[in-house]
Amino acid sequence: MKRLLVVVILTLFAFGLNATVPHRSSIPDIPGYITLKGDFHIHTNFSDAQVWPVTRVDEADFDGLDFISITDHLDTHHQHMAKDWGANVNRNTSYEIAAQAAKKYGIMVIHGAELTRGTRIFPGHFNTHFISDAEAICAAAEASDGKFGSDEVKKEETAILSGLAEARKQGAFVTWNHPDWEQQAPNETKWWPIHTELLNKGLIQGIEIYNSFSGFDPEAFHWAMEKDLAITTGTDAHKPMFQWVDYEKGEYRPMTLVFAKERSLKGLREAVDARRTVAFADGCIYGKEEFIKPLLDACISISGVKFSEKKMTVTVKNLSTIPVCLSKAPGSEMVVYSRLVRLNEGEEISFTVNGIDSRKPWNVYDFDINFYVTNWFTDTDTPLKLSYHVSVPAKYRK
Amino acid sequence: MKRLLVVVILTLFAFGLNATVPHRSSIPDIPGYITLKGDFHIHTNFSDAQVWPVTRVDEADFDGLDFISITDHLDTHHQHMAKDWGANVNRNTSYEIAAQAAKKYGIMVIHGAELTRGTRIFPGHFNTHFISDAEAICAAAEASDGKFGSDEVKKEETAILSGLAEARKQGAFVTWNHPDWEQQAPNETKWWPIHTELLNKGLIQGIEIYNSFSGFDPEAFHWAMEKDLAITTGTDAHKPMFQWVDYEKGEYRPMTLVFAKERSLKGLREAVDARRTVAFADGCIYGKEEFIKPLLDACISISGVKFSEKKMTVTVKNLSTIPVCLSKAPGSEMVVYSRLVRLNEGEEISFTVNGIDSRKPWNVYDFDINFYVTNWFTDTDTPLKLSYHVSVPAKYRK
Amino acid sequence: MKRLLVVVILTLFAFGLNATVPHRSSIPDIPGYITLKGDFHIHTNFSDAQVWPVTRVDEADFDGLDFISITDHLDTHHQHMAKDWGANVNRNTSYEIAAQAAKKYGIMVIHGAELTRGTRIFPGHFNTHFISDAEAICAAAEASDGKFGSDEVKKEETAILSGLAEARKQGAFVTWNHPDWEQQAPNETKWWPIHTELLNKGLIQGIEIYNSFSGFDPEAFHWAMEKDLAITTGTDAHKPMFQWVDYEKGEYRPMTLVFAKERSLKGLREAVDARRTVAFADGCIYGKEEFIKPLLDACISISGVKFSEKKMTVTVKNLSTIPVCLSKAPGSEMVVYSRLVRLNEGEEISFTVNGIDSRKPWNVYDFDINFYVTNWFTDTDTPLKLSYHVSVPAKYRK
Amino acid sequence: MKRLLVVVILTLFAFGLNATVPHRSSIPDIPGYITLKGDFHIHTNFSDAQVWPVTRVDEADFDGLDFISITDHLDTHHQHMAKDWGANVNRNTSYEIAAQAAKKYGIMVIHGAELTRGTRIFPGHFNTHFISDAEAICAAAEASDGKFGSDEVKKEETAILSGLAEARKQGAFVTWNHPDWEQQAPNETKWWPIHTELLNKGLIQGIEIYNSFSGFDPEAFHWAMEKDLAITTGTDAHKPMFQWVDYEKGEYRPMTLVFAKERSLKGLREAVDARRTVAFADGCIYGKEEFIKPLLDACISISGVKFSEKKMTVTVKNLSTIPVCLSKAPGSEMVVYSRLVRLNEGEEISFTVNGIDSRKPWNVYDFDINFYVTNWFTDTDTPLKLSYHVSVPAKYRK
Repeated sequence: MKRLLVVVILTLFAFGLNATVPHRSSIPDIPGYITLKGDFHIHTNFSDAQVWPVTRVDEADFDGLDFISITDHLDTHHQHMAKDWGANVNRNTSYEIAAQAAKKYGIMVIHGAELTRGTRIFPGHFNTHFISDAEAICAAAEASDGKFGSDEVKKEETAILSGLAEARKQGAFVTWNHPDWEQQAPNETKWWPIHTELLNKGLIQGIEIYNSFSGFDPEAFHWAMEKDLAITTGTDAHKPMFQWVDYEKGEYRPMTLVFAKERSLKGLREAVDARRTVAFADGCIYGKEEFIKPLLDACISISGVKFSEKKMTVTVKNLSTIPVCLSKAPGSEMVVYSRLVRLNEGEEISFTVNGIDSRKPWNVYDFDINFYVTNWFTDTDTPLKLSYHVSVPAKYRK
Repeated sequence: MKRLLVVVILTLFAFGLNATVPHRSSIPDIPGYITLKGDFHIHTNFSDAQVWPVTRVDEADFDGLDFISITDHLDTHHQHMAKDWGANVNRNTSYEIAAQAAKKYGIMVIHGAELTRGTRIFPGHFNTHFISDAEAICAAAEASDGKFGSDEVKKEETAILSGLAEARKQGAFVTWNHPDWEQQAPNETKWWPIHTELLNKGLIQGIEIYNSFSGFDPEAFHWAMEKDLAITTGTDAHKPMFQWVDYEKGEYRPMTLVFAKERSLKGLREAVDARRTVAFADGCIYGKEEFIKPLLDACISISGVKFSEKKMTVTVKNLSTIPVCLSKAPGSEMVVYSRLVRLNEGEEISFTVNGIDSRKPWNVYDFDINFYVTNWFTDTDTPLKLSYHVSVPAKYRK
Repeated sequence: MKRLLVVVILTLFAFGLNATVPHRSSIPDIPGYITLKGDFHIHTNFSDAQVWPVTRVDEADFDGLDFISITDHLDTHHQHMAKDWGANVNRNTSYEIAAQAAKKYGIMVIHGAELTRGTRIFPGHFNTHFISDAEAICAAAEASDGKFGSDEVKKEETAILSGLAEARKQGAFVTWNHPDWEQQAPNETKWWPIHTELLNKGLIQGIEIYNSFSGFDPEAFHWAMEKDLAITTGTDAHKPMFQWVDYEKGEYRPMTLVFAKERSLKGLREAVDARRTVAFADGCIYGKEEFIKPLLDACISISGVKFSEKKMTVTVKNLSTIPVCLSKAPGSEMVVYSRLVRLNEGEEISFTVNGIDSRKPWNVYDFDINFYVTNWFTDTDTPLKLSYHVSVPAKYRK
Repeated sequence: MKRLLVVVILTLFAFGLNATVPHRSSIPDIPGYITLKGDFHIHTNFSDAQVWPVTRVDEADFDGLDFISITDHLDTHHQHMAKDWGANVNRNTSYEIAAQAAKKYGIMVIHGAELTRGTRIFPGHFNTHFISDAEAICAAAEASDGKFGSDEVKKEETAILSGLAEARKQGAFVTWNHPDWEQQAPNETKWWPIHTELLNKGLIQGIEIYNSFSGFDPEAFHWAMEKDLAITTGTDAHKPMFQWVDYEKGEYRPMTLVFAKERSLKGLREAVDARRTVAFADGCIYGKEEFIKPLLDACISISGVKFSEKKMTVTVKNLSTIPVCLSKAPGSEMVVYSRLVRLNEGEEISFTVNGIDSRKPWNVYDFDINFYVTNWFTDTDTPLKLSYHVSVPAKYRK
């Protein structure tokens, strides 16, 4: 009888899920790579969040993600599940349930775990991805507990170093999470000596530059660029995603874009190791110019370029979900063109370029039109710069 | 260290919750009673649903409910939690967690449980509310298992009878859930002899006439009216509520309106015992005329009544969230007025009444204007009828 | 200088339009025909509405329509424009402005006009489409004014007969609009002798069965089926469309679906003459079985049909914007399957068919599964009926 | 007959209007003043926009505005209405129609006009508000046309000077519109000598710092602060408002907040003359500290202040529609508190202040907690600064 009940309920779930219309984003591939969209920071009932791993997979489908990493806290099995009720739940279970549920959608699930020792002192939280056994990492982190007396800092640093060493032994890709989280960084965001040690020992490969609790982290983004760490974003979701993302306002969940050679966990791993990641969050793009420039080229189409005796016209369309905001950059004061262009999803705009006096023929024949993309960044406070060269056709030259 | 983490996370949850704007409905009180809005059928992680009890409370606040009843399946403790992992979780726990979490919102939580024996054979599912110990009900239901050999029907009927007897001993208010659920009623919705027995023995007091899986149940509504059972509705939610209700389209969660003498669990109980309940679901109202007529009067305001030599004008406004659809009813063919009036939340309409020939003075002085309220029902396929008497003032009579 | 201003403003309009995301519906073609979506009833500033014809075209693009008919009232040039200010505006102007503006979108604009004589007496309002000169129709309608003394009915009937005769001379396709509009039909919707006369004289070819003011008209739909009139729908929009259609709730504007041999005005005309039209409004479909049956087949995909010893499973997906609600119809009580299936856009559901006792092997081998499509109608109160024949494969027969 | 039609249509409009739910903002009064919300820049069919003045009033009601100024271009009567069709429409007509329509809503309509001479050369566009005769202003501006040969600049400057002189003679309040509009300011936003002349002659009193075409204008805001000009915003709407503002995403129309002594046109005028105006656009506030500081105080409620031996907790709630984003400002490094607080409408957050080492008792007793309000500005790039003094109660001092 019980088996039948399960079948019935699964069917009904499938129906219930469809009650709301998915909010899938449209983000193009770039030359040479497939663009994979995902979330590197997710919790479930198996640590301190409020939903079952299956819901995390349903949500990923709703958002059109290619992958998620299940990163439950190693050191907070669900308070009650593990502690009050004596349940014997392995720390790899949430990953296993999610991976199983994800098959029907074709979503990739990364085996992950979050090492959250030292909440209020500096080493911080670290996500380990592509691991094989969360229990071993937890055990390694806990091995030295009790050896440091009242020296909390030493104790937590040792736990992190040991835990991450085990994770790396398993082949993990490790990220430092939300460096600006106020609980750890109450007055300012700092790179402590422990982080240099982690970096030197090869124990971190990436850094979370956007987290839904604390938002965009300008210092973390700068460190990613400076130290060549892979950029990641995470929702760090504890509640159902619908309570975090205001879909009614058209918001998208923050996501990491990974430029992979193939759509597989192997492809994903090769790409993060090679630092081919970009963040898309709150309508902004953060990443290296070598990736975001081709991404922008893939997002916009330029058409209808026409010259006449006095002007040039051009149409720009945004084919993607990512907004594109252009602001005129210095360098071409001898011609006149649009000072501000904003293109949301599917929007297009035609604009005109002409000489300073629009009532007279061209008097400059070769020039650049320059823009800053004010919501795409190559470093903290550094917008991407675009430059298009224009050459007036011979027949319109005096 | 761990205690601190909990504090921190609770704070952040409170923030996350506010990311989306609540969808609270506006439904007035009626003379003599407070209108309490609630959900009589809800599941959590503690049986086979996907969310923690705390989320159910957050959702109730989001929807502006006054009460919820946590009605986890007695016979499906979470499959894994209870079975695979050997957790020792009492069946009253989900209620206890929800009741604790509800304090900050002032939401009332009813201690409930769903007795779901005999899924595919007829006794059906029953919700027990206002109980004191779910474990005892489960034990009573299971007591005779094994005594009936292959007679599944006998076995399940006995289990239901015993379980509900124990529930009633605890003082429960019991409802028959989703009588038209296809798993139990694959070809038609039937009232079986067992239901007569349950009724005669005082083991059921209410019936679920709307369930989010199966929608409105016309037979159940008719039985409620015929046999004087309390009407209830339930979401029967297993997934996060946002996956069930399309808030983006302005939908409201189905709810039971209870007309209580005071806003307390005691008031709630007195009201359901007295059958003072009405269903609001999919934009329709279902209930006894003695309750829905005053509810309608409280929902609409009538103003601007003006007479002239040839016509009367009047303005009707819907002050509530419940739509009001009026269609002209027979009986006053000697006057002419609006054939169709639809009023959604906050809308108002002015309409005119005049004699058959609108270009001539009144030739009838006393008459009724009659409407059917086509989305408010007093029985299956029986819309509420409204009748307003109009008397033309003496000075406009020839 | 002024010319420049116009250019500038047009550019900015194009930008402004894109500020909101279009609500285009997805409705498939049917075998042999292209499905064209459109609106047969639209007003502009040139009669008594509040927007310029260009906005009507922008709105049609927003809604993804293939065609619109501009049907300004012949007898209410904009009150002020024509009367108070003595503007000399030809009655064909609104069509001309819209047709010009529609070129960039590839939207077809029908040259139309509404003959609205006799507002409060019975002949009613009539839309003339595919006309060549609205001025001549207006003149014909007004020719006999003054000849009938106080006999308003005779006067208006004559005006309608003369006006429509002129329209037909121009080759018009004529529809009777909103027969249930309360201004004309205050107590009931009637087919008067004048309508029989119009029909016999070949002066009407279609009938509006849905109008945004008065909603669905059950009598008109029945007359369309009974008398073989082409079904049309119209928004009858006077305000900006955004004030009529609640896009935020996911509503679609009512539309007429025309099954044409080619996407051209000629194709459109051939199709309406051949009565190949269907109404889509408020989530319902109204039309002849010969068109809505293939439309339903094109809207849904059936896949994953699998048999086993005891059951058959099948997956149904709705590929279109049109909801599909199925309710089990009588005729196959010896098998058990889903009593209720609702599929909104993009949703899919898997369901199971098995014998009466689901725990036993098949005992019936050839049967139909029957459904009513409860929101698709072939006549008033007559849902479309679906019947699928199932034959259990030989190897599962005892 | 025609009169009846008008009545009928007005009734139906009233119904149609209610089809969509209004997006009214909640913005509080400040001590001593009523906060009036409005739009100082609106076009209609009477110049080059696409909607009738009545729709502008419906939209203002939808948005919950207290006032609008109808500012049709003086020099572009609707191209066709005035020119092609020879209509004899007075330039004051759009104001008159709007003022009439606004009575039922209690919305105030300012008699305005936009002087748009010299579109592509520098004097720019100017709105005149509280005028008595738009025709006279137009005539004054055109009086010298033809006297300056090919000197376009001289011609346009003279026209502006003469037109504004006439406007001021009528008692106008004059604003310089969108100084950064690319058509006039293709490469940079400049204050030209003509603007100094206008200022010295008392011909301008305000400046538009936000316009929906060009967005926020940082130079204009700085000039407003520097030269004590009244801040205004305008939608500059030409299309229906729903095509400009993405209500589905929860956007609000940009608005000018005017702090008036009474809710009347007189009160409004006194307030703008006294420069008591603030801009609310794109979720930001721009204005003098003397107004936005009390506005912020009225928007947020602070409650639940509690001290203990080691910390202070406080709850902040945003009672208004205006978002409040706080970022920790320097000056109190000896205590620890929230680095980032974001409060959208209706949201509240509790946060904690304690000493540097949260595990130890207070060691500082009197301090300020400082924030920047990062979306409220007192000058270009200058966020409002908040400073709350905290004094630890004696009993918690060591």
